[in-house]
Formats: sequence, structure tokens, C-alpha cells
Amino acid sequence: MKNKTEVKLIKNRAIIKFEGKNFLGEIGIDGRIFKALTYARISVGVISQQAIENGISVLVSEADAEKAVNCLINEFEQERKSGKVSLIYSINNVSVIGFVSKDFNKIMSELGRNNIFPLILNQVAAENRVNIVVTSSQDEKAKNIIEAEIFARPKTVHLAIIGHGNVGSTLIDQVLESSEEIRNRKKIDLKIVAVANSKKIALNRSGFSENWNEEILVAERPSKVEELIAFSQQNQLENLIVVDNTASKEFVKNYPVLAENGFDLVSSNKIFNTLPISEYRNFRHILNKKNKKYLYETNVGAGLPLIDTIKLLHLSGENITRIKGVFSGSLSYIFNNFSVRDEKFSTILKEAMEKGFTEPDPREDLSGSDVARKLLILARELDLINEFGDIKIENLVPENLRNLTKDDFISRLSELDVVFDEVKKSQQKSHVLRFTGDLHGDLQKEKGELDVKLISVPVDSALGQLKGSDSIFEIYTESYGENPIVIMGAGAGAKVTARGVFGDILRLSENK
Amino acid sequence: MKNKTEVKLIKNRAIIKFEGKNFLGEIGIDGRIFKALTYARISVGVISQQAIENGISVLVSEADAEKAVNCLINEFEQERKSGKVSLIYSINNVSVIGFVSKDFNKIMSELGRNNIFPLILNQVAAENRVNIVVTSSQDEKAKNIIEAEIFARPKTVHLAIIGHGNVGSTLIDQVLESSEEIRNRKKIDLKIVAVANSKKIALNRSGFSENWNEEILVAERPSKVEELIAFSQQNQLENLIVVDNTASKEFVKNYPVLAENGFDLVSSNKIFNTLPISEYRNFRHILNKKNKKYLYETNVGAGLPLIDTIKLLHLSGENITRIKGVFSGSLSYIFNNFSVRDEKFSTILKEAMEKGFTEPDPREDLSGSDVARKLLILARELDLINEFGDIKIENLVPENLRNLTKDDFISRLSELDVVFDEVKKSQQKSHVLRFTGDLHGDLQKEKGELDVKLISVPVDSALGQLKGSDSIFEIYTESYGENPIVIMGAGAGAKVTARGVFGDILRLSENK
Repeated sequence: MKNKTEVKLIKNRAIIKFEGKNFLGEIGIDGRIFKALTYARISVGVISQQAIENGISVLVSEADAEKAVNCLINEFEQERKSGKVSLIYSINNVSVIGFVSKDFNKIMSELGRNNIFPLILNQVAAENRVNIVVTSSQDEKAKNIIEAEIFARPKTVHLAIIGHGNVGSTLIDQVLESSEEIRNRKKIDLKIVAVANSKKIALNRSGFSENWNEEILVAERPSKVEELIAFSQQNQLENLIVVDNTASKEFVKNYPVLAENGFDLVSSNKIFNTLPISEYRNFRHILNKKNKKYLYETNVGAGLPLIDTIKLLHLSGENITRIKGVFSGSLSYIFNNFSVRDEKFSTILKEAMEKGFTEPDPREDLSGSDVARKLLILARELDLINEFGDIKIENLVPENLRNLTKDDFISRLSELDVVFDEVKKSQQKSHVLRFTGDLHGDLQKEKGELDVKLISVPVDSALGQLKGSDSIFEIYTESYGENPIVIMGAGAGAKVTARGVFGDILRLSENK
Repeated sequence: MKNKTEVKLIKNRAIIKFEGKNFLGEIGIDGRIFKALTYARISVGVISQQAIENGISVLVSEADAEKAVNCLINEFEQERKSGKVSLIYSINNVSVIGFVSKDFNKIMSELGRNNIFPLILNQVAAENRVNIVVTSSQDEKAKNIIEAEIFARPKTVHLAIIGHGNVGSTLIDQVLESSEEIRNRKKIDLKIVAVANSKKIALNRSGFSENWNEEILVAERPSKVEELIAFSQQNQLENLIVVDNTASKEFVKNYPVLAENGFDLVSSNKIFNTLPISEYRNFRHILNKKNKKYLYETNVGAGLPLIDTIKLLHLSGENITRIKGVFSGSLSYIFNNFSVRDEKFSTILKEAMEKGFTEPDPREDLSGSDVARKLLILARELDLINEFGDIKIENLVPENLRNLTKDDFISRLSELDVVFDEVKKSQQKSHVLRFTGDLHGDLQKEKGELDVKLISVPVDSALGQLKGSDSIFEIYTESYGENPIVIMGAGAGAKVTARGVFGDILRLSENK
């Protein structure tokens, strides 16, 4: 007894396409096609005739395709000569999937998001019965997606985690820990199917578990993007997300080809968004064309709701007039402490390094480049076309110390003390030092003014009140006037960054 | 010469449905159907046969429907007797729409969002040609939606603005002012087609312009939800959003029927989200079933990114452990000032009233109910099932003044001075008063603890530093530990509230 709700997959079909002029109103063409095919003992599966354009598609078994084409070529020889029938040919390697569904459009939408576009689609009225014809290379993927929808199974989302350092490994643990609850609560099944570093990639179609660390150690495949793409296609994996938690300038070059091949992207990696504006925009054009998304909330402010807030204000026509704040957790810690403690700058700096607040080479933080990148990313959210070179950056590293090796620099930290002591002393009363990013100027023009520098602020201002290693962002808009929207909190650290990346993953997964 | 890219609409069709057993593999049934109809001089438009189930649909002109059914009933008399053919009947009042499109799935998705589900759908391979059959009552709407997609016309979003007081009128002005830019930048055409107050509704299919105020004055239709729904159906309006900027307990009862009839909803009106949890959940069930959305960012914190932030943290599995803050702009102003100025409480209160920071009857603010409602809404974002009655609310209005008329109360404001003076004086040194909402307890359980009360905090804390009439929200989570995410800014006022509502409208409009 056939199960009515089953999703049926019939492989090895071919579409016979038959085109000509002026079929509309012509009674009998269909009949002739059928008669001819019937006579040749060819079984016909699905027919669809265009009501308005002039074509008929007929489904036959792939083994019969050549015979069917020849049969129709003969039958319509006269019409072909007169030009009334213009084309008769076959499309091979297709499969038919049949199912019953109340939520046809949701299914079509999910298939579309996975780059599956039916070649023929037949839906019959109130019975909710549908047949679609897809290329064979997508048939299993399509069947899985349809079954997930019909049987209310959790939707499987396949994650490729690039980079398993601090943020990446924390993220993997967070995903593994929350996966069961998310499956129950949100009907989403998060599967980590790839873990990669700069050398190797480990692949697991069923999804990695707690021993992922061992598996990447013994992985042998070279970490090439082609490996990942081929793996996803061979296994017909749906709902693909690449998650880039590296700081790699190399890996970001893969973003366009990944989007072209069906991957959504999430990154804490800031590099892509600070590439020249032409690459920035070209990639977004590709994303739009392929109906893919790129989320990067953690590019600025780790898990703080900054990018999304700015996006929405900007979208709603709110005139954002200025964005400024302390964007760097490490420099926040350093100057919050240096300003109020009677210690040498190098003492505070060493403390920050020991606590893990800085990069291994603290000049990466002190140079202001990281803050500058974040500021540029925010500027581009407002459709400004600034480039990295536009930013006026105050490099806190004295010139004579910039070209030393890391170890040499660290041994000469005390050479920073005199100049910073001077800066601290020269402030007004009840003022403190803060290293800030500031986007200002006429933000309605093409480009804004971007400044990264050490400033002195009153201790009772919002910036002045900053504690610990928190970041703070002040968003000035026309409606909000003199009093900005202030968002403040831990803007750095593996845990909160990973959580922010996780948020982006879920936002993509939930999206229908 | 036919324009290939035109969207064609053919009205007055009927579907002839023909069902039976075991057609699969049976060669010749189609041929017989055509032959019979041809013989009866009935022109056949679209055929689709189920490859797997057993049915054939044939499109004929509505005028031929009865004849076609009878014709087939005769032709298949034997098969009907044997039970091989089970049903032959017609579905009238349908139209066919034909178009050429690269982005078939996007179109289907847009149609689905507007509750249009094709009865028959035919798509032919790489030519991107599609025909759909829809009920006549939806044909114009479908054509508009399809044309908007194919010709990259702006998508038209039809807004029904309920309530045109402070927030509502500001919103209408913001929409009218931004509409051209949004049309250019986002390809969205926002049309205000309805403006209503508690008595009357003004309707304008082409969209209101700057003189909307005059039109609502002369409107004659009673402000009934049935008027709005009928208007939207008669005019086949797509992409409908109802925007509720009232504080009406009555109007919210219409939310379910509006969602059932194809409207998305946006509200600054807090009432719905504080109804009993069963109504709260039932409505979300309807939204889900009808694939509609309800956005209410401005329920708490006006335009501050609060609801969305909490939603996403919660969704990403982040364990939110506490939310507290100053939720009321009016009480923020009152206590920010009262705490640091050497004035009587009634003096500050009168000042706030004159500046428009309070409701006309300031007891509405002082009672704490508004703060309580906001706190409840936040709790429910965390899937807690608290009811309004669970909240411990400190009503700042002395008991003996609660039941006076508004004017009597206002004449006796000075009776508040003694008690508040006492409270102010009894604080520790360098402390200030703040009226707060606090969601705490074990938020992993079914219900949380909700407190609304006046507290004393150190002046150098985040709450203590609050200025003007700003709101502040502290979100404590597991990852963020002791240092919460802090969101602060103007949490009240028509301008920022309207902008927040506008943000929700655009979020819905952009959503595909």
C-alpha cells in the first residue's frame, strides 16, 4: 500500500522538449505527440504545455530519450520544414521528485536558497501534490530538503569552520554544547562537517563531535577551498555556511568562489571588509546574485549589537551623523588603568600582555591598525566609500621602535614611559586618556572623516567611565540629537566573540 | 509582435480535474482526453499530469467548463463504472499568468508571502518560462507582484497606519519624507493607503501624501477592521502592513484577524504583548501558520536595539541571567533631576509635566505600570511565561491620592514632597535615586522574578550616570559575566519612537 505522504524519487529520466510557433489554440498537437510516442512504446510521465508561449515538455526514461526525439522528428517532419515546429531535443540526467505538501512555497524557497531550481514543476490544486524535475546531481539534496520540511524534521545546517584557534575552538565547543537544545527548540540541526586550518582540512559528512581536535590532527587533505566545495557537492549537502575565524589575508580571497558555489558566509575575520571598495562591492553583488548572505557582526565589538543596529538605523533613513568610541579591548584596558593608576606605561602594558589582552606583539594593538579597520567597516555600513588609506591613524609606537623584532621591542618597553607620562600629565584636571575611533564629517557625502587617536576626556563622560576592557560605541543621529545611542560591554575575548559568531550562524539558519 | 518579456494575464479559465487509479505507465489516457475534447471543439490550454499520483488537470475557457466535464464523463463511462476513473469535475474562476523570469523562486516566495498559492504551476527548463494558474480574486495582485520582480520595479508595500497622534503623525511624515530615497536605494515603494483613528478610517488606494491630515478629517467610513480588510481584498493589495501606534486595548483584539487576512504587523502599542500568555502564544501560532510577522522593537526602549539584541542572544543559546535598567524616559528625567537638584519633588514633577515628559495624568508614569509592561515583554522574549500579575510593582503614588480625579491629583502634588524628601535623604553618600525594572532569578525556569521599584545606586555606576531622559538597559549573560552589555539612549519621545517603528517597517519590507 503506497504511503501517500512519502517523498518519491525517480531517477534516470530525460526531458523531451518540443517547441514551435502558434500552438495556442491549435487543437490536437498534444494528441499527435502522445500518439507518436505511444506507438513507439515510449511511456510518458509528465507533460506540460505552455499556455502562452509555445512549447511542450515530456518526461521519458533516459533510455528512451534518443528514440523519443527521433520519433517526434519523424512525426513532425512537415511542420519542421515549414518552420512551425522549431526545436525537438532532450535534456538528460534528470530526476523526478513527487511529494504532498501544504507549504509548497516554503519548500520552493528552501530549494532556491540551496541553488536548486526545478526544470519542470507541476502542482495540482487543492491536493497539494507536487512533482518537480531537477538535475540528477541535486536530486538527493532536494529530497532531503523536501523531507525535512514535510516531516517537520529539523533542518540540517552544514558548517565548515575555518580556523580553530581561540575563537574557532570556543565556537566549536559552543555549537556542540548547544546543538541538542537548538534541535529541540528551533528545529535546526547544526552539523560541523569541516574543520580547517591553514594547512589541513578535516571532513566528516556526519558531523564532528567532541573529538574534533584529534581528527584535525590526523587530517591529511590539504586545506584548499576546492576540497571543501567538491566535498559539499559530492555529498549534496544543503544549507552550507563557511565560518571564517582566522585573521588570514589569504583565505578571504576564497569568499567569492564560496558564494558562487552555494555557501553563506560568517566571519569574525575583519580582512575582507577592509579590502579596496571595488572588491567589497563586487562581492556583495555576487552575494545578491546568488541569493547568499554574509554576516559579520563580530567584525566590530565582538558580540555587541553594533553592526546590526547601524544597518537598521541607516536603512530606516535615520541620518547617522557621527560614530565614535573605544573599539579595542586591549587599548581600553591599557588606558583605563594607565589613566587612574600611578604607574609607568610599560608596567601597565606588561600587565595587559600577561593577562592576554594584547596580541603576542603588542605593537599590533598600539599601532592603531585594528581600530582603524573597525572604523572603516562601520563607515562602509553607511555606504561611504572610504579606503583604508583615508584613515588618519595615530600610531602609538615611537618611530624608532617600529622596525625592531618582536623580542627586541618587548625588551625596550620602558622607552615608551617618558612620552606617555608627558601626555598623561598634560591633561586637564579630572580627565582621562582614551584611544578612540571617530567617524565624522558630512556623512551624507561619498566619504567621511576617519580618525584613530589618543584623546583626553572628562572622567564623568560616558567614555571616561569605561571600565575593565570594555568597548563603547556612541552613535549620533539626527533624531537622537546631542545624546547618542550608547552601546557598551565586553568588545573582545574569545568567549563573547564566539558567541557573536554563533548568533550570526543562527540568524542565517533561521532565515527562510 | 509579441513582447517576450511581458507578463500575460488570461482571465476566465476553469480547471478540469480528472482523477483515477494507476495511470502511471498507462499509455494513451492523455490522448483520449485530448481527442474527446478536440472532438467537442474545446480548446485546451495547459495540461499537467502527475507522474506519481494519478490525476490530470486541463485548462479550458470558463464558458466551456460544463461541456468539457460532460464530454469526459461520457468518454470514460466504462472506466468510471469500473472505478478506474474516480473523479471528473471543474474548478471555475481561475486565471492564467504567464511570464519569463530568471528568478522563479524569488517570485514564488513573494507570491507566497502574499498568500497566493498557484493551483497549477508549469515551468519549462532553461527558458525560464512559467505559467501559473491562480484564483481570479488574486490575479491582479499576482500580476503586480510578478511584474515588480521581473522588471525590477520597486516592490510596493501598502501601509495601514492606525493612530495618528504624536508617534503616528511623526511616522507618517518620516515615511513621506524618505519615500523617494527608499524607492531609489532599496527598490521599495512605501504607500500609506489607510489612516485610522478610533472613530474613522480614511482609505486611498494610490497612497496618501502631505495632505493626509485633511483627508482623515473628512473621512466618513467607520474605523472597523472589516473595512480595512475588505479594502485590501477588493483592491488586491500586496505586501500589507498594519502599523499600530495607539495605546488602545480595543484595537489589539484585531491582531489575529489581521494576520489571518494577510497583514504583517508592527506596533509601538505595548498592550498585545502583555495580554495573558495564552493569547500571546496563540497569536504567534497564527503568525507562524500564516507566515506573517509581528515586529515590536519600540515596545521597550523606543528606537534602541533592545528587543532584537535580546532575541538574538537568547536564540544563540546565550544564557541571559538578568536584565535591569531604567525603562521610562519620564521617570528617568524626574529622578535624574530630583537626585542632584535641591528642589522639592513636586517642583521637578511639574517641570517634567510641562516639558511633555509625562502622560497628561502623571500617575500613569508614577504607578510603575508602564515600566512593568516593558519588563514583562522582555521576560517573554526569553520564553518565560510570566503574567502581569506576577510583577512586584512599587506604585509611587500614595494610596490616598490614587483615586482622585486627574485635576484633583494635580492640585495636590505637594503632598508627595515629604515622603520623597525622606527617601532622598536616607541614601548613602554619593548615591542617587533611580526607578528601575529588574528581571532576575533563575531564568532557565518557567518564570522569572520581576521587580519594578525605586532604588538607590552609586552615582558613578552606569545607572547613576544616566542623564536627561535617557533609558538604560543592562543585559547580564553567562559569557559577559559581571560586566553586562549596556544599551543607553533616548528611550522615549515621538521622534525616536517613530523612527524605531519605521525601522521595523523597513525590516519587514526588505525581507524576502
